[in-house]
Amino acid sequence: MTYRAPLKDMLFVMNELAGLDAIHRLPGFEEATPDTAQAVLEEAARFTEEVVAPLNRAGDVEPSSWRDGSVITTPGFKEAFRQFAEGGWQGVLHPQEFGGQGLPKLISTACNEMLNSANLSFALCPLLTDGAIEALLTAGSESQRALYLPRLISGQWTGTMNLTEPQAGSDLAAVRTRAEPQGDGTYKLFGTKIFITYGEHDMAENIVHLVLARTPDAPEGVKGISLFIVPKFLVNADGSLGARNDVHCVSIEHKLGIKASPTAVLQFGDHGGAIGTLVGEENRGLEYMFIMMNAARFSVGMQGIAVSERAYQQAVAYARERVQSRPVDGSARQAVTIIHHPDVKRMLMTMRALTEGARALAYVGAAASDLAHQHPDEAVRRENQAFYEFLVPIIKGWSTEMSIDVTSLGVQVHGGMGFIEETGAAQHYRDARILPIYEGTTAIQANDLVGRKTVRDGGTVARAICQRIAGTEAELQARDGTAFTAMRAQLAKGRAALEQAIEFIVAHGKADPNAAFAGSVPYLKLCGIVLCGWQMARAMLAADRLRGQDSSFHEAKLATGHFYAEHVLSQGEGIRDAIVAGSAPVNALSEAHF
Amino acid sequence: MTYRAPLKDMLFVMNELAGLDAIHRLPGFEEATPDTAQAVLEEAARFTEEVVAPLNRAGDVEPSSWRDGSVITTPGFKEAFRQFAEGGWQGVLHPQEFGGQGLPKLISTACNEMLNSANLSFALCPLLTDGAIEALLTAGSESQRALYLPRLISGQWTGTMNLTEPQAGSDLAAVRTRAEPQGDGTYKLFGTKIFITYGEHDMAENIVHLVLARTPDAPEGVKGISLFIVPKFLVNADGSLGARNDVHCVSIEHKLGIKASPTAVLQFGDHGGAIGTLVGEENRGLEYMFIMMNAARFSVGMQGIAVSERAYQQAVAYARERVQSRPVDGSARQAVTIIHHPDVKRMLMTMRALTEGARALAYVGAAASDLAHQHPDEAVRRENQAFYEFLVPIIKGWSTEMSIDVTSLGVQVHGGMGFIEETGAAQHYRDARILPIYEGTTAIQANDLVGRKTVRDGGTVARAICQRIAGTEAELQARDGTAFTAMRAQLAKGRAALEQAIEFIVAHGKADPNAAFAGSVPYLKLCGIVLCGWQMARAMLAADRLRGQDSSFHEAKLATGHFYAEHVLSQGEGIRDAIVAGSAPVNALSEAHF
Repeated sequence: MTYRAPLKDMLFVMNELAGLDAIHRLPGFEEATPDTAQAVLEEAARFTEEVVAPLNRAGDVEPSSWRDGSVITTPGFKEAFRQFAEGGWQGVLHPQEFGGQGLPKLISTACNEMLNSANLSFALCPLLTDGAIEALLTAGSESQRALYLPRLISGQWTGTMNLTEPQAGSDLAAVRTRAEPQGDGTYKLFGTKIFITYGEHDMAENIVHLVLARTPDAPEGVKGISLFIVPKFLVNADGSLGARNDVHCVSIEHKLGIKASPTAVLQFGDHGGAIGTLVGEENRGLEYMFIMMNAARFSVGMQGIAVSERAYQQAVAYARERVQSRPVDGSARQAVTIIHHPDVKRMLMTMRALTEGARALAYVGAAASDLAHQHPDEAVRRENQAFYEFLVPIIKGWSTEMSIDVTSLGVQVHGGMGFIEETGAAQHYRDARILPIYEGTTAIQANDLVGRKTVRDGGTVARAICQRIAGTEAELQARDGTAFTAMRAQLAKGRAALEQAIEFIVAHGKADPNAAFAGSVPYLKLCGIVLCGWQMARAMLAADRLRGQDSSFHEAKLATGHFYAEHVLSQGEGIRDAIVAGSAPVNALSEAHF
Repeated sequence: MTYRAPLKDMLFVMNELAGLDAIHRLPGFEEATPDTAQAVLEEAARFTEEVVAPLNRAGDVEPSSWRDGSVITTPGFKEAFRQFAEGGWQGVLHPQEFGGQGLPKLISTACNEMLNSANLSFALCPLLTDGAIEALLTAGSESQRALYLPRLISGQWTGTMNLTEPQAGSDLAAVRTRAEPQGDGTYKLFGTKIFITYGEHDMAENIVHLVLARTPDAPEGVKGISLFIVPKFLVNADGSLGARNDVHCVSIEHKLGIKASPTAVLQFGDHGGAIGTLVGEENRGLEYMFIMMNAARFSVGMQGIAVSERAYQQAVAYARERVQSRPVDGSARQAVTIIHHPDVKRMLMTMRALTEGARALAYVGAAASDLAHQHPDEAVRRENQAFYEFLVPIIKGWSTEMSIDVTSLGVQVHGGMGFIEETGAAQHYRDARILPIYEGTTAIQANDLVGRKTVRDGGTVARAICQRIAGTEAELQARDGTAFTAMRAQLAKGRAALEQAIEFIVAHGKADPNAAFAGSVPYLKLCGIVLCGWQMARAMLAADRLRGQDSSFHEAKLATGHFYAEHVLSQGEGIRDAIVAGSAPVNALSEAHF
């Protein structure tokens, strides 16, 4: 078994930290009992461990390949995707009305984590399809929904997001693809899109491209962007496939990682125009695309957690097996397995603590999203929506940044073997490197966190979170033992550091944006460290309550929380210095100085 | 130009921080005037920029390949190596007696940095040859020296280090290769060595393998290891080549990076025995090998600095060119080059500050090595030797660990383009990943720093360094301005944190080794952060003195030092917490918990 789903930790987080019990009492989620959740997770574990995980290395060795406009995916992917579709896995989160299972995001998040741990490249196809489904659910017309949603949700077709163009990476104001109305309700699209994940492949009958483009009279900038459906094969009114549309994959990229996932350059309209239909209203494309992007950003954050978990498992397995050197404390005269060496333990504990902390925060975020959608009380919905929106850039930015460190440690635990590709540790290191880049770089997430999530409301939501953290500190104070004492002290220091950073960001966000944004990524990291630390503290409290039921698991959780406090939360004050005192030298050098 | 040697910073560090002036007044280094140093560096810059750097990408795309026991290097490598040899570059550091130039390590270090920035894979061959030369200079017999040294120093032949075996990575006690005396002064060797860098290639006439093996009656463990010369082609008394020896390359590895550098599996004695001669005395091989390793460890530290410099230059070039998004301060209505965005500046400043700090410390270390060898006063030699030995694990461990972060930021600055292999940023990220592993992982360096360099002398050398840092703090106090104030405050905090860590390590090193070694790598990183910060502080003082001579360079140095203080030195106290309070949870989990 190359991957084993960490069901115990997943269910612990869902039940004890994210409040699954409260989620399943929400209207619409009656079926999502803890028992159902466990059954779904066990089935997802079986499928991802047995079917998807074994294809991970194959995808690296035999990536997707392009030939004459077609993409042939890694051997085994097509069949695995068929099973994925048949299992109903694309629909876990989506409405029953269109064939989905309508389960909470909290449950689908755990399923997504497993799929991504099993195989990041494979999981990207459903990830993008999820985004297309979200956008059509929100902005699609009734007929678009009826035509596309059941086929996307069943996995018969897949979806893509077409934002980036060669001259416009993160800057959507620069989008140039044209959409010309044909007078019959359709448009013809012309332009080039790059970095389109699963923009072409052989795993589904049709590919539904959601494309940002400009109509002839659109205003400049982001206010003149519209969203279009441009299917690979035109779709007849009854859902059957018509002619091949004029969108073609002219090449795929040669990438550092996630090689099985084809990254397409798509050419629209080279042979007369690609036929598309408008989604929602003209010039509101960015708004709709943000729906897809927000869903996708959360999911990419989950990818960071997922690849960290996989790297951790592989490192533990190697450390249990590899015999080398005697222990430093002289407790054995022979060489021992390296898991007994303190620095190997430190590396594994770092990987574990970062991964568990990020998982806890992401699942808590998923639960907040469920509450924001389904809670009967509007005030509760609003509060949870604000909390969730604050978390999204942190879940995306922090979980992916830490995955670079975790997968790097995964290589390091393997020593020289880690540098040999056949070992597999290096693949995680390469695969993870895209995560802090796509769906908005960490800087883009940090801009969102600073601008829209902190400065705009004068720090209200951010400060409210610090209040809640202080409440957890009070609970910790009532427990005995060095682990609790350490966590309380480091969480208090970290929370105070975060409060100081929040005040700096709020004070400078408008008055001196260069100063505030010089610290934007450090601010995001500080939020990640402290908020995940908060969840680890809550996990320690829960483990303490449950101690005795599964003592090995709960003892390990206490030790991991203790580790997180002294090795991760302890970084908070240094980052605060960088934010509140370090902006001047960030901006000191002019272009010529570099 | 894909690489431009940072001559200005190199010469600044050599002259103002490392004391080239004092070095060239040492006996034997009379010719190494600052003018000579500059001339040598300029010539090295020309050669590495024009001849070696352009082959870097070629080595990644068309790595060394193995066929029927032979290795064909990347096209262009053989010719570049010929020019390297003809230029006398292998001999910069080595004695004139054997055809070298006999220049100080301080000068050769700068040359090595350039060669490695130009092409890590290419530079590895001379790096290993240097190690073989050092070992033979120290332990070789007169005839071995006469036979091998001139040909290694001229670049006619190259050298290798053969330590690792499949069952023994870092643990040399487990070496099993056998050496059987033949009664005629020669031995026959039998065994398998892995991870042998340039263990087979086509760039030189002969390859001189230095091999660790056991004689029949040798004691167990590291005390029973001897060192042998096993040339690829036997060498006649006149230096001409004889028969092919029984050492064969049975495969090379498929690696994450440094792909042009062949990593060989060598089989000794499959056809009757590989003929070797003993170096020095039997059972003292480890001692001799440490000479090679210490030279190689310093050089691998330089590789970290070198690849960081290269990644920084590439990121700056991209950031100057790539136009995207309007500035956050509203200073332009159009999209600008990304070098104007605060977070891009922050990333570039991080890369720059880490690289400059590590360069300064390494060059200061090289100067200490020169003083330790050549100074007429024995007390000065001893003091500098102790200082140098303390620095080696830090230069190796810290410079390579930081290179992972710097090359990762290099990818991040490029956004999505960074993930595309053709861009080249990903190659640095892949290449750098071996640096904290080979020639002793960071944990091995940290064990050395804790055990031999800190605990053994009760912290004497470490505390003396802290004293010198405090002296620099006093100098900073006399200067005005926020940059100096910030540096003084952060350096004092960092130094105090380091002092606390030293006391913890000294107190626990023997009494509770698991506690001390749980913090060994954090201790190494804290040393790296604080000692490099100390050098950045000294650089600020020097830049302040010289202000006006080259104001752009000196202003940038002040700003970079200021940045280092608030963004890097600020991390010190958090790491101290991990060392002094974080050992218990490192060691808390048993094997079964993971």
